[in-house]
Amino acid sequence: MKDRLRGVITPVLTPYNDDLGIAIDLYLEHAGGCLTAGAHYLSPFGTTSEALSNAPRERMEMLELLVSSGTVRADQLMPGTGMNSLEETLILSRHAVEMGCAGVMTLPPFFYVTASDEGLYRYFSQLIEAIASDALKICLYHIPQNTGIGISPTLAARLNQAFPEIVVAYKDSSGDWENTKAVIETAPGISVFPGSESFLIDGMKIGGGGCISASCNSNVAAIRAMFDQAALAQWDAAEAMLPRIKQHRLAIQQGGLIPALKALKAYQTGDARWLNLRPPLENADPNLGPEVAKTLT
Amino acid sequence: MKDRLRGVITPVLTPYNDDLGIAIDLYLEHAGGCLTAGAHYLSPFGTTSEALSNAPRERMEMLELLVSSGTVRADQLMPGTGMNSLEETLILSRHAVEMGCAGVMTLPPFFYVTASDEGLYRYFSQLIEAIASDALKICLYHIPQNTGIGISPTLAARLNQAFPEIVVAYKDSSGDWENTKAVIETAPGISVFPGSESFLIDGMKIGGGGCISASCNSNVAAIRAMFDQAALAQWDAAEAMLPRIKQHRLAIQQGGLIPALKALKAYQTGDARWLNLRPPLENADPNLGPEVAKTLT
Repeated sequence: MKDRLRGVITPVLTPYNDDLGIAIDLYLEHAGGCLTAGAHYLSPFGTTSEALSNAPRERMEMLELLVSSGTVRADQLMPGTGMNSLEETLILSRHAVEMGCAGVMTLPPFFYVTASDEGLYRYFSQLIEAIASDALKICLYHIPQNTGIGISPTLAARLNQAFPEIVVAYKDSSGDWENTKAVIETAPGISVFPGSESFLIDGMKIGGGGCISASCNSNVAAIRAMFDQAALAQWDAAEAMLPRIKQHRLAIQQGGLIPALKALKAYQTGDARWLNLRPPLENADPNLGPEVAKTLT
Repeated sequence: MKDRLRGVITPVLTPYNDDLGIAIDLYLEHAGGCLTAGAHYLSPFGTTSEALSNAPRERMEMLELLVSSGTVRADQLMPGTGMNSLEETLILSRHAVEMGCAGVMTLPPFFYVTASDEGLYRYFSQLIEAIASDALKICLYHIPQNTGIGISPTLAARLNQAFPEIVVAYKDSSGDWENTKAVIETAPGISVFPGSESFLIDGMKIGGGGCISASCNSNVAAIRAMFDQAALAQWDAAEAMLPRIKQHRLAIQQGGLIPALKALKAYQTGDARWLNLRPPLENADPNLGPEVAKTLT
């Protein structure tokens, strides 16, 4: 248990130049900044990163650049790798393993919204058997509001039992505390990360791993401080920090998460490229920036 | 209008060997058989083809093989090309244009279930502007039960008005006749293909293009005969064929579409490889084959 994955993890925003190519300078600066401010790990190419709007090629190149630039160590990375085809998920996951990443965060194949737990088990077990390496550490990524298909507590437990050294974590972005709790209870071998810091304390009280949250792009120092208190079981101290943290989270959520975070970055850095999002998302409204910033002062 | 895309189109099943690689021999035989039996066009890598379970690489290789083997002419192909990232959709669509395909069938970027019509317009218009060829003919692919996001009649009309030579068709797999009708009425420049032959006659009566239907893998001769009567406005003759055709469709739907079609192929050909599906789908039950076959005799 002591080696299990824990911490505050930033699903790193992906900034774009005006031609919508990745803005590498902004990316490296932001990723490094998240670590300096207290993130334990980075998850490039999660939902907050507009992961699915980036081709596998770009995603692999960016991971390599994060490491080769000295911005991040590979063992601080837990990139998103879930595509629909097993071949593409395999390519991204194997690449992460070969780089020495701490883990991979893997969506279910989300075109198949009516797939059974048996079919999903078949998908993940074939992935694991094809990679054939204990260096693979999978964080199952549950975000049914986007994928239309979730990863049930029972499936998580079954995968952990079959592959105890490999299926070791679960990101719950459903916002449904009952599901988070059910995974923690049903799959005790798995480290569960709520997708919002609002559930960090409640999760850690019963064995949760911390959080992987969009707001770790904008408020990671405060979230890390709360995590540190929770990790010491200083629940009252942690709880005292929560209202302010929740207020910021709410402002970001009301602004639609990614646009709000990007508008805030544009406001903080003065670099308007931060307002760019790739289609089908629309660019961020610059007016959101100063509004969201008020919840940080 | 006379040149608009019309006909009976088969979204070709993808057969797999026992190691789950594409069974090329079965694929070419089946694709050729669909054309011989009456399909006007083939749509490799639609939903019935388990499209999203095949990597872009495999999809492009298979299209090239269909043509180089002499099985199909490129102008008889309308492959699926919709991925989430614009780069991947662009690669697949440009490849189809360069091959000389009749069109491409393109999903919306389906991870983004809350994208606005404005955002989707931005996605499709950037795709079209990047390809920059009037040889591109897009069939918008509406299948909200899988994608979680649809292509509204208004968006279809807007895209057709902006790109009248390029956005020329719409596949409606929703099974919602009101939507099919609304697209035909709202976007008269677009050729609308219901995803089921059950709506072929009703659609063609008001200007629809035919159908692109899973059952064109198993029953294309009958569907083509019905189309031919409808194309001559021999509505009574067409209607007389419909009950039998619907009975077969129902049997396939009840068997879960892809597994039922594959079980039927396994039964008809005696080749058990037809029972294979890629995960997260499960293999077909061989007992379905003879049952479904009864609705064809």
